[in-house]
Amino acid sequence: MTNKVYDVIVVGAGHAGCEAALVAARMGHDTLLLNLYLDNIALMPCNPSIGGPAKGHLVREISALGGEQARATDRSALMMRWLNTSKGPAVRALRAQCDLHDYHWHYREVLEHCPGLELHQDTVVGLIVEGDRVKGVETLYGLSYHARSVILTTGTYLDGRVHIGNVNFSSGPLGQIPAHGLGENLLKLGFRMGRLKTGTTPRVHSDSIDWSELQIQEGEEEPQSMDLWDKPEVYRHITCGVGKTNLDTHRIITENLDRSPVSSGTITGTGPRYCPSIESKVMQFPDKDSHTVFFEPVARGSKEIYLQNFSTSLPYDVQIEMTRTLPGCREARIMRAGYAIEYDYMDPTQLTPWLETKAIKGLFCAGQINGTSGYEEAAAQGLMAGINAVLRLRGEPYLVLGRHEAYIGVLIDDLVTKGTREPYRMLTSRCEHRLLMRHDNADRRLSGIGRKLGLLDDGRWEILVERWRNTDREIKRLGSTRIKPSDDVNSDLASIGEAPMDRSLTGAELLRRPGVDYDFLSRYIPSGEDLEGHIRRRVEVEIKYAGYVARQERSVKKFERMEALTIPDDFDYRSMKGLLAESLEKLERIRPKTLGQARRISGVTPTDLQLLSLALSVRRRRDGAA
Amino acid sequence: MTNKVYDVIVVGAGHAGCEAALVAARMGHDTLLLNLYLDNIALMPCNPSIGGPAKGHLVREISALGGEQARATDRSALMMRWLNTSKGPAVRALRAQCDLHDYHWHYREVLEHCPGLELHQDTVVGLIVEGDRVKGVETLYGLSYHARSVILTTGTYLDGRVHIGNVNFSSGPLGQIPAHGLGENLLKLGFRMGRLKTGTTPRVHSDSIDWSELQIQEGEEEPQSMDLWDKPEVYRHITCGVGKTNLDTHRIITENLDRSPVSSGTITGTGPRYCPSIESKVMQFPDKDSHTVFFEPVARGSKEIYLQNFSTSLPYDVQIEMTRTLPGCREARIMRAGYAIEYDYMDPTQLTPWLETKAIKGLFCAGQINGTSGYEEAAAQGLMAGINAVLRLRGEPYLVLGRHEAYIGVLIDDLVTKGTREPYRMLTSRCEHRLLMRHDNADRRLSGIGRKLGLLDDGRWEILVERWRNTDREIKRLGSTRIKPSDDVNSDLASIGEAPMDRSLTGAELLRRPGVDYDFLSRYIPSGEDLEGHIRRRVEVEIKYAGYVARQERSVKKFERMEALTIPDDFDYRSMKGLLAESLEKLERIRPKTLGQARRISGVTPTDLQLLSLALSVRRRRDGAA
Repeated sequence: MTNKVYDVIVVGAGHAGCEAALVAARMGHDTLLLNLYLDNIALMPCNPSIGGPAKGHLVREISALGGEQARATDRSALMMRWLNTSKGPAVRALRAQCDLHDYHWHYREVLEHCPGLELHQDTVVGLIVEGDRVKGVETLYGLSYHARSVILTTGTYLDGRVHIGNVNFSSGPLGQIPAHGLGENLLKLGFRMGRLKTGTTPRVHSDSIDWSELQIQEGEEEPQSMDLWDKPEVYRHITCGVGKTNLDTHRIITENLDRSPVSSGTITGTGPRYCPSIESKVMQFPDKDSHTVFFEPVARGSKEIYLQNFSTSLPYDVQIEMTRTLPGCREARIMRAGYAIEYDYMDPTQLTPWLETKAIKGLFCAGQINGTSGYEEAAAQGLMAGINAVLRLRGEPYLVLGRHEAYIGVLIDDLVTKGTREPYRMLTSRCEHRLLMRHDNADRRLSGIGRKLGLLDDGRWEILVERWRNTDREIKRLGSTRIKPSDDVNSDLASIGEAPMDRSLTGAELLRRPGVDYDFLSRYIPSGEDLEGHIRRRVEVEIKYAGYVARQERSVKKFERMEALTIPDDFDYRSMKGLLAESLEKLERIRPKTLGQARRISGVTPTDLQLLSLALSVRRRRDGAA
Repeated sequence: MTNKVYDVIVVGAGHAGCEAALVAARMGHDTLLLNLYLDNIALMPCNPSIGGPAKGHLVREISALGGEQARATDRSALMMRWLNTSKGPAVRALRAQCDLHDYHWHYREVLEHCPGLELHQDTVVGLIVEGDRVKGVETLYGLSYHARSVILTTGTYLDGRVHIGNVNFSSGPLGQIPAHGLGENLLKLGFRMGRLKTGTTPRVHSDSIDWSELQIQEGEEEPQSMDLWDKPEVYRHITCGVGKTNLDTHRIITENLDRSPVSSGTITGTGPRYCPSIESKVMQFPDKDSHTVFFEPVARGSKEIYLQNFSTSLPYDVQIEMTRTLPGCREARIMRAGYAIEYDYMDPTQLTPWLETKAIKGLFCAGQINGTSGYEEAAAQGLMAGINAVLRLRGEPYLVLGRHEAYIGVLIDDLVTKGTREPYRMLTSRCEHRLLMRHDNADRRLSGIGRKLGLLDDGRWEILVERWRNTDREIKRLGSTRIKPSDDVNSDLASIGEAPMDRSLTGAELLRRPGVDYDFLSRYIPSGEDLEGHIRRRVEVEIKYAGYVARQERSVKKFERMEALTIPDDFDYRSMKGLLAESLEKLERIRPKTLGQARRISGVTPTDLQLLSLALSVRRRRDGAA
């Protein structure tokens, strides 16, 4: 219909699609972003919150690579809190409660103002494929758009079906239109597709809640920022409430379980293990008397309150009854029902580590279509798919982040290596090198890559370099400046339960003591400079955990050796004798790119790995000889 | 499901539904407003503009009666212009270009903060009816809500179907979900239903337009306000563009007419005569070389430009081609396609003059379901339906505005008396007493009614009374203050082409001369007070047109006599001898409430009216005797 051939077409403008389209356009490529409704760009159909452990790490990594999510978060934040502050630096992370309309508008404005990026409303109903290459998309409004690569970020819209008790209907997130046609098309193209489900909570009118019965949760007083460059701004002051379910709640849920679409078998898709519905929690933990529920505002202008942790797909009348058992909720008025939504996803083991489908060249997938859950997981994949779609067009090596470099690396490696049968959520525990991959050092880990890709301009880059210089200088200073024992310092140490000093120590040595922090130290060896808070925190972490970090770095070396052993794309597993049938099937299906990736495939035995390692050596010798 | 019985349930939160729900709650009644998606409340799927001739009159009347639309307009206005300034005071009116998101949020916040009003997301799939009384509604999410009255304001959602060329699909306004079930339910309840269609234009990215090729239209410099009480505020400065179609545009349209869903017969619903698609205009006026197109921004944060007057349902590829022939549009990028939408409406002759269905007590209808088009027409009906639903609950007389009192009166009388087979749009020409019913005197005509209904508080009322006092005082002063002929005044008169004075005249006498305005007058007889601009304008109009107004008032007297002749509900038309079959059929179907209304039914002949008048006298005599 139109003769234009876009470099990249992105299908869907959710958290994954927005990042994919922005990064492709910012890297200088003609990009078209298609969404079925322009007013639901970057929608937050669950609670409008960004960050927290593991997810916050992802957002910082996105920021370091030049993505947009951190900035959208800062610009829309109603409050922010540091989580896991008592649990060590690896899992410490910032979480923001956002205004979902400001968040939408931030992305919308950035998209509409981005040169090289076109934003059209339309629904993609099928792919144009020639041989093993994607050539474009066909749309509901009757157009064909041509492109060199296509990125699918379909979220929960692909044949979405909403469930509220035994009522169910074709729908995107409740109130939104779904997308039909493309799911079937993918199936016909030979992809293994499945169904997943996720859910949301009822939303209650703020004035119908007695807030005095809830514990009030305040945000940080000192403004914070998620983005590496944003100046922390004072939030629009908003607090959340915290309450608990009780035995009444659990009784109502238990009595009505037979009316749940899960129990009745109407829902077949698997739900998120780490974000279960309240009815699943009640069933799984029959001994627990209560579960915590967070009462979270969704936008400044609105009275709607999201009941985080109270997700449900029970019938609406049961939702009303069970909500009214919560503290402060005797008169609660539900404005929107909770619901479960089922949608199509694609088995992500059909993807390469750079998120391209193995079967169709130029076709990339990111976000919920790959089986993940969460805005941050989606945005991270979208960014990587966008970058790799561009690198493919340029004929440059793909960007694959290692498991020791980034949470993004762990996320994608888990997906493409192990696949998933339930909505995958990022967790700090999935990350074996997590002391190396902290919230606070995402810039140092990844912004060099963002810079090389042209995604960080000179101004931003210089800010980082200056920041690192100050950090290193301060670490060096603390490592060389000595404090002598004195009555003053020893009495101060005693007051925080630390043993007295019996000889002079460097600042670094003293800082390694558990009770001593940077502020303590600066009383005795003031830096003379007013270092920014986040630099002080980072200096503290770097010094305190230097020993652990060194140990993890050694294990990473081992890991990198395994990753360096690449497996040729045309490697014939059937030529190997003695491989177990299960290992053969999985290796052939997933086609790992390295021996390291092969090792992470569940079900591939150590013996088979040894066989593979041996076969690879033979092959390398042969290739080298040829 | 829930035992609560609401006083009023409003189905749909568009322009009609919002006004209906707000007024019912403000009058102190328990109200529930149901909408299929809470984020599309008071949506503006066509161009986000409010007011202009006739429509602006409606908005001022809504304001005088205590409705919300004028305020929503003021709070979201991007610019305002006075239209028809050269055409006499009757048709002069204010038109605002609004930010559609601010407009939405104004209503949303007012609704969410209104005591006694509940706002729930759900889709009504059927009515609960017992005998001839409505008892509540049933919803898609599986709930039954009970109520004493129900107001249907379903807009274009009832079995909505979108057409773009030969592509068509079930949809609300493009990108929105439609509502199924209720249309069929109404049909089963015995209502005569029909299909109408309306359309919108493509929306183009602002940066893809060469604005230098367009004429730029500025708003008024002096801030204006639509609401009777709002202080005029400075707008966020935004201009519109004006361009014209050309022979290329018309050629592309003509060549592709066979691909229009109207020509191919896919669309059966009738479109709006006074807001036709560009293809209808090209077909209807083959001799015209061009049609004017307005380029209108839709929101401050967005780059989308609405092409007012360029509505189309041609295929998307044709839309691209034809848009690119417009001035400044060679490179235009369409962000959203134009489309036609077909939807269910109800023959409005099934309604009483207070908008209740004749067949089912307590069931009211307002807005597009009654066959109208336009946000203002919808809001006006919504307000009246809301007021009358409440008056019914209170057992008080219904509020029916006369054709000589308000555009609202004309609108509703036209609908319930004549019905409509195409989307009905308010026009000044529909109004026989339009010199009495001006934009500037809506307060004086109607706010007494708003006050009596309790919709205008003391503060607002006193502002009006003060305003009227000042106006009357000034009119009186001008009627009694004389200006003597002098060289000064005569030379000033000569400069505006007016004859010199040869004797002393009152200010009023001088003002009645065509070229003389209030500002001229105030040079010779300054008022000593700094009267507000709108009061000065009103004084001028009242004096200048006093003669015409008096004549219209006499004709209204005649009209009122006809309206006073009421027809009893149980009047048996079949008892009348000699009535034509067509007259009988129409009188029985519409069941006019007065002889005046009977006279306005098209096809009822003067002779039959005389017969009816006679029969009514006989009946009155009989009833009086009984």
